[in-house]
Amino acid sequence: MKIGVFGTGVVGTTLASKLAALGHDVKLGARDASNVKARAWVEATGGKASAGTFADTAKFGEIVFNATSGLGSVEAIRAAGKENLRGKTLADVSNPLDFSKGMPPSVFTAAAGDSLGERIQAELPETHVVKTLNTINASLMVEPSRVKGETDVFVAGNDAGAKAQVSGILREFGWKSIVDVGGIQAARGLEAYVLFWLTVMTALKTSDFNIRIAQ
Amino acid sequence: MKIGVFGTGVVGTTLASKLAALGHDVKLGARDASNVKARAWVEATGGKASAGTFADTAKFGEIVFNATSGLGSVEAIRAAGKENLRGKTLADVSNPLDFSKGMPPSVFTAAAGDSLGERIQAELPETHVVKTLNTINASLMVEPSRVKGETDVFVAGNDAGAKAQVSGILREFGWKSIVDVGGIQAARGLEAYVLFWLTVMTALKTSDFNIRIAQ
Repeated sequence: MKIGVFGTGVVGTTLASKLAALGHDVKLGARDASNVKARAWVEATGGKASAGTFADTAKFGEIVFNATSGLGSVEAIRAAGKENLRGKTLADVSNPLDFSKGMPPSVFTAAAGDSLGERIQAELPETHVVKTLNTINASLMVEPSRVKGETDVFVAGNDAGAKAQVSGILREFGWKSIVDVGGIQAARGLEAYVLFWLTVMTALKTSDFNIRIAQ
Repeated sequence: MKIGVFGTGVVGTTLASKLAALGHDVKLGARDASNVKARAWVEATGGKASAGTFADTAKFGEIVFNATSGLGSVEAIRAAGKENLRGKTLADVSNPLDFSKGMPPSVFTAAAGDSLGERIQAELPETHVVKTLNTINASLMVEPSRVKGETDVFVAGNDAGAKAQVSGILREFGWKSIVDVGGIQAARGLEAYVLFWLTVMTALKTSDFNIRIAQ
């Protein structure tokens, strides 16, 4: 499948590399087509994958992952162009974290009481936004067996078909327990979780952990 | 042990009943000594427990649980009197939820970026505040075996001795996996978790669930 990935940081390149390794045709998107990290990543794949602007990447992908930093996500989406994402699924992996005042970061959507997932959905009314994978580190996203036992990953979005499509890719990554937590408004809960995640990460001194819900 | 419990709602009376059943000498605290729910609860214990004002309850307890609603917690602590809680441990079970605009509630500390646990600690500089039990429903707090397998409960606070004291009571409740997530500032993560908890509760249509962290 043709998959676009926005973001050249650890999350974006980890997702893009895994998707390419799974045999997908991947394009990595950045603000500028000349982005050095994107070019280096393409070279590391032996030229099997490609890179481009956010707009190039949006046009290219049948499905697109947003793995840009939270503070830059809405700007990246606007640069991508809503016409290039119309009718497609956007898997939003970002977190609304502001590290500008140091650690711990603040959640910049907290005062407004909404979520970045909802803001992105509002920017893209004709795109099916699915919030997912934002509750774990990049390595775990694509290799859930790094932690013991079966743990949970979440999907939230307004379109059942888009959630099924994203869940298909999550299963390719190795996820077995995919918990559908509802519409895109549920991104509020998934994003608020990140402050809990940071607290646990600080206490455990590792980011290689995840949770399993027990009933 | 003499234990005070602030709050006559479901959480307060559930904790107070369990503590009394475990053989502790329990006093349930409310704003007014004539509180109808507190009186009814005392009668239900066959007069083995007692009730009183927040100040009476603070004086009485060697350890005190705060199970008032989040919006009323700081006021309850002020009514209790910091002199009555000096040198003691206060286990803070509250969540900073504002239901005044309906569901889903908002977290009223979110804009300030702090936590109710920290606000209570700031009110009581000579008391050892331990944030705990706010990540589960009242029934599970005192009966962790309601969910399958072993799940986690958390403690956060600045005083190791106070966390050990609270952990002792958690073990009496049946908790085996008690995760120390650090100082009282970690209450930010434990309280932010509640928005995640609400999201999962809505999706699962039950509040009888908890998480297990896997590494």
